Amino acid sequence: MKEHSLDRLQTRINEMKNPTCLGLDPRPDVVPGFLFDESGDLEEGLYQFGKRLIDATADLLPAVKPQFAYYEACGIPGLLAVQRTMSYAREKGMLVIADAKRGDIGSTSEAYAKAFLGETNMAGEKFSAFPADVVTVQPYTGSDGVKPFLDTAVAHEKGLFLLCRTSNPSAKDLQDLQLTSGSAVVEELAMLIRDWGQPYVTPTYDLSALGAVVGATYPAEAAHLRKLMPQTFFLVPGYGAQGAGADDAVAGFRNDNSGCVVNASRSIAMAYKKFNMPVEDFAEAARLEVVEMKEKLNAALARR
Amino acid sequence: MKEHSLDRLQTRINEMKNPTCLGLDPRPDVVPGFLFDESGDLEEGLYQFGKRLIDATADLLPAVKPQFAYYEACGIPGLLAVQRTMSYAREKGMLVIADAKRGDIGSTSEAYAKAFLGETNMAGEKFSAFPADVVTVQPYTGSDGVKPFLDTAVAHEKGLFLLCRTSNPSAKDLQDLQLTSGSAVVEELAMLIRDWGQPYVTPTYDLSALGAVVGATYPAEAAHLRKLMPQTFFLVPGYGAQGAGADDAVAGFRNDNSGCVVNASRSIAMAYKKFNMPVEDFAEAARLEVVEMKEKLNAALARR
Repeated sequence: MKEHSLDRLQTRINEMKNPTCLGLDPRPDVVPGFLFDESGDLEEGLYQFGKRLIDATADLLPAVKPQFAYYEACGIPGLLAVQRTMSYAREKGMLVIADAKRGDIGSTSEAYAKAFLGETNMAGEKFSAFPADVVTVQPYTGSDGVKPFLDTAVAHEKGLFLLCRTSNPSAKDLQDLQLTSGSAVVEELAMLIRDWGQPYVTPTYDLSALGAVVGATYPAEAAHLRKLMPQTFFLVPGYGAQGAGADDAVAGFRNDNSGCVVNASRSIAMAYKKFNMPVEDFAEAARLEVVEMKEKLNAALARR
Repeated sequence: MKEHSLDRLQTRINEMKNPTCLGLDPRPDVVPGFLFDESGDLEEGLYQFGKRLIDATADLLPAVKPQFAYYEACGIPGLLAVQRTMSYAREKGMLVIADAKRGDIGSTSEAYAKAFLGETNMAGEKFSAFPADVVTVQPYTGSDGVKPFLDTAVAHEKGLFLLCRTSNPSAKDLQDLQLTSGSAVVEELAMLIRDWGQPYVTPTYDLSALGAVVGATYPAEAAHLRKLMPQTFFLVPGYGAQGAGADDAVAGFRNDNSGCVVNASRSIAMAYKKFNMPVEDFAEAARLEVVEMKEKLNAALARR
């Protein structure tokens, strides 16, 4: 099969020597208010939030991950802003991971898959609603809820990350339930991800188009899940504001230091506080934090 | 606590003697093409699809359930159409169930909850992005992913349906995994839903603001899950095009025939085929099908 977007993500990580993803979480407490004052407009303020962070960091970072929840909470202006932000990031050469955590049963998952990874054909028109390189997907409905995403990804040389081990405290509620097979739910899902993704492994990096979300906040778990999913790309959330450090975040990398991208959102967008800089310089501060995070991750990878 | 929207849903079901929900799934093969030809516009065509079905059935039906995947796949015009459709349905007195299957970790779930059930406060403005009475939610991240939806629902007298037993064939992949506790994953989740929802049970009907999705395609399972969740409102998908009949669909109702709403989408919107009517009469045909479905469900409830 042809290269998929997770191959391209690994290539960019290698070129930039940086496995970091810029998370865009435009929360009310994160977006600097002056962006709205300057533009006088919700959509433009949200767009400027992403654009300025991208402008300040695109030469250092392989990928950007807009969190759809925050854009969607702002209604149509928010969704227009995320479309423009994603398009701008791609112009700048970044891979776009739509963190939308969509998922449903088969035919409905297909509609979501087309919205983010493919094309919708409606009313005699063909269009891509929220074009991304990768989308995050919910696992609870099982294989027929995931397959349309995988089929659409493969047809369009894209990829997806299926939730496996989330980074939150209550992840354990369902994911740690112990099965009669001797595994926990999260391990059983990891084996399913391995099996479902196996036909979509390319020789480029020995990685599948079906990736997995594996939170940085459970490093021992991440190392274990890596053994169960050797050919699976991990999206690693939880670095920074959620409490995980660089050593935690690299626990799931493969032995050759490939196969993971580590996301940080608030710790980058709000770095101006850490560096005691004025909020107007939030993008410059973000760049300083990205440089520091890159060094910390590479140091952590070197000392494993 | 005050009444929540699932109380209001039960009241409307009782008043109309009809536990049916109109599912709006604007798939390319379901929306009549003439609606786009008439309006010359994607948004207007999608809006007319819902509006005409609502106009033809609102006096018979307590609720409408727009499936967000299909609207989202049409991009901004689709999302404008679903906003208008939801607003129109509420004007006509219907309860609106946003079938968006959203969910994330805590703070991000809060943004989704505000988008559908509450208010976002951003850029000095307060607004409701996609105001609904009820929203469907993903369970995989556990309690802290669900709690923001529940808190927001309770604050705004709304409700939610958490996915429990989905109606698709591969539901079993995760949901049927057998636990060392003796339960399956789906039963363990049912007990969590019961416990999480318990503080939000109102005396009106002895029902919680936290409901569950329990597919009609697994009737024996639905009857069993009812025993585990006696105070939980069930959203029952899978009737009609997915293969479940009236006797299957009523398996999860409480002994007093309350506590469930049965959704049908394609079987209503495409009833013109069953009745050999021209596509231009799809809304009239939908009304005939709604009348027939109401009779079938009530007959099935009577013979239990």
